[in-house]
Amino acid sequence: MRDVVIIGVGQTPVSENWEKSLREIAGEAVFLALHDASMPAVDAIYVGNMLSGLVSRQENLGAMISDWVGLKYCEAIKVEAACGSGGAAFRHALMAVGSGDVESALAVGVEKMTETRSSSTASALATAADADYEIVHGLSFVAINALVMQRYMHTYGWQHQHFAPFSINAHANAVENPYARLREPISEKDYLKARMIADPINLLDASPIGDGAAAVIVLPHEHFKNKYGQLMDKDPFGRPLVTVRASASATDTLAVHSRRDPLWLSAAEDSARKAYSQAGVTPQDIDLFELHDAFSIMSALSLEACGFAERGQAPRLGLDGEISPRGKIPITTRGGLKARGHPVGATGVYQVVEVVQQLRGEAGANQVENARLGMAQNIGGSGATVITHILQVV
Amino acid sequence: MRDVVIIGVGQTPVSENWEKSLREIAGEAVFLALHDASMPAVDAIYVGNMLSGLVSRQENLGAMISDWVGLKYCEAIKVEAACGSGGAAFRHALMAVGSGDVESALAVGVEKMTETRSSSTASALATAADADYEIVHGLSFVAINALVMQRYMHTYGWQHQHFAPFSINAHANAVENPYARLREPISEKDYLKARMIADPINLLDASPIGDGAAAVIVLPHEHFKNKYGQLMDKDPFGRPLVTVRASASATDTLAVHSRRDPLWLSAAEDSARKAYSQAGVTPQDIDLFELHDAFSIMSALSLEACGFAERGQAPRLGLDGEISPRGKIPITTRGGLKARGHPVGATGVYQVVEVVQQLRGEAGANQVENARLGMAQNIGGSGATVITHILQVV
Repeated sequence: MRDVVIIGVGQTPVSENWEKSLREIAGEAVFLALHDASMPAVDAIYVGNMLSGLVSRQENLGAMISDWVGLKYCEAIKVEAACGSGGAAFRHALMAVGSGDVESALAVGVEKMTETRSSSTASALATAADADYEIVHGLSFVAINALVMQRYMHTYGWQHQHFAPFSINAHANAVENPYARLREPISEKDYLKARMIADPINLLDASPIGDGAAAVIVLPHEHFKNKYGQLMDKDPFGRPLVTVRASASATDTLAVHSRRDPLWLSAAEDSARKAYSQAGVTPQDIDLFELHDAFSIMSALSLEACGFAERGQAPRLGLDGEISPRGKIPITTRGGLKARGHPVGATGVYQVVEVVQQLRGEAGANQVENARLGMAQNIGGSGATVITHILQVV
Repeated sequence: MRDVVIIGVGQTPVSENWEKSLREIAGEAVFLALHDASMPAVDAIYVGNMLSGLVSRQENLGAMISDWVGLKYCEAIKVEAACGSGGAAFRHALMAVGSGDVESALAVGVEKMTETRSSSTASALATAADADYEIVHGLSFVAINALVMQRYMHTYGWQHQHFAPFSINAHANAVENPYARLREPISEKDYLKARMIADPINLLDASPIGDGAAAVIVLPHEHFKNKYGQLMDKDPFGRPLVTVRASASATDTLAVHSRRDPLWLSAAEDSARKAYSQAGVTPQDIDLFELHDAFSIMSALSLEACGFAERGQAPRLGLDGEISPRGKIPITTRGGLKARGHPVGATGVYQVVEVVQQLRGEAGANQVENARLGMAQNIGGSGATVITHILQVV
């Protein structure tokens, strides 16, 4: 596979956006990424989206978006892996360019979720879980995660308040991110007093849905050579080139009850292990980790599965202040799903955009110092489909 | 990109299958393909599906299927391009193996469409067209195609009866295909008397929906070397290896009314032209063509866009007997969408399976003599997303 670099990124603010249709939101992110890359067009578009069929009665999103942005003759395909759709679309773009089959590809994640009744959205989100064996029993997606969190607290002896740092850190990091949905800092008191959704998950354990789109453009590294034929480490604008060191995907059982250990994200472990091996790095080398904090329990499970904490010990990282931008393993540095927001099929691309911002040194107040190696992990379902990427400044 | 060969295929009969769930149907095709390839597992599964969210309230199909078939740790992702989903999933598998990122991949197309009211299915299928600019006006998917067919007949002076050979040929070819949904031959009289659906499209112009799954396994050609290190042209069972000579995808406007010429499938032309160029062949070299005959008008438009007939002249090929297995350009050799059936997201993989059968000489009564080069073209929406593959006996 050819080495691939990221040359343009774009995102829209995650919000409740009644003024714009699905295609307009996607188009905005596409145009921003093209502008950032100073490119007029790409050869292929891979769309990450989960809910357009159920929420907007629209499939065939590839053609819809390529048509809308005026690139109607390029390849354009939608990729779906529930809340992991964005990461899967980015991975498809990497393979397309890496294989040599196309010379430039754009991954755009887009979701429009707020235009229906919230019960319809909850029901649409439930399609990420096992319809025949979980949802049929009246479990919602948050209920599944609540059972896992309950079990985690019971098994490892943590209390609800010990998860507070995950949410507090995410909200604190979102304050300076103009694309985040919830830009208000929260205190431990706010966290403890928040309205219960599915015990023990309260409103401040859960990520908000939202409308939004993010886009990333990739090219082969060999397009950037100096006059001596050597690969360059800067793009034509002098920004550091960001290269994709690893891309790996794995799955687990769809239903959580089928797992040997419901408290272990084995697909996250498999996917991260493959990624570390591709990149030739260990968790200690990672400077920041955009993880899939759909619920605070997922932050804990992801940190453990990816080797940043011992089994059952991830809340300790939060309590010790190690997850902030100045900690040992900064997570959700731009707000994460919790505060930037979780437009499900778009989230995986937002994560990649945010890692790129950190590696380019464009993360403003939340810049992780000397960030050279960043990881993004996108999860579809309750740990069923996991896609991990490791990016590095060239 | 590494050269890629097809080493296993599997399919289920297209039918109204109330006894089996979505995962069971998909699993059957996966197991048949693994058995055909004599492999216990693959590294990655790419699922082609359009409607599972709307019809079965189930997304995250990648994890669902890999879990069900006992390959729960492999990569598994769904790809969607409306009725072109199967072809898109196969193309994703090619890129994954071609890029070197995975060593073996399986594309499985699956659709379960008959378990809901037919009005719900029609409404779900309408998501392939433009929700905001076509469907909102009350157009159904068949109505869009009826307008195109009406215009075609008006512009080029054909009458409805001149399209009969497309349907008669498809039905005749399905008789000996045990996987076909409609195995009854039809006469021109049957065709002319069939019940009208959307003038001029009658029941025998339209393909039937159905439940079904088809699967294809691909490996790098370099896995098949003899003791002298030379690439082999047979698999370990002595069957001819089928290599993928071309894979190309293109898009057009989503809404038909936005096209300069609604009677020209420019995405089919673009995609076929790219494929011919990759394979270094011309339409005259193609021994058979599994085209996307969702409606008989689509057969005509595809033949023209891909260079098998002059603009407006494709019905002539049918009237001259040139589309039968013994004609100049055999199409729908196993029944096509019209008679094998059209389980939408699975169709593109069925087409590939059928081309492989022809190239291996396993097509029985409908065998195209000396078939060495076969083409499959899968279309999502009314020509919006087109994916073309050219396969060849090594």
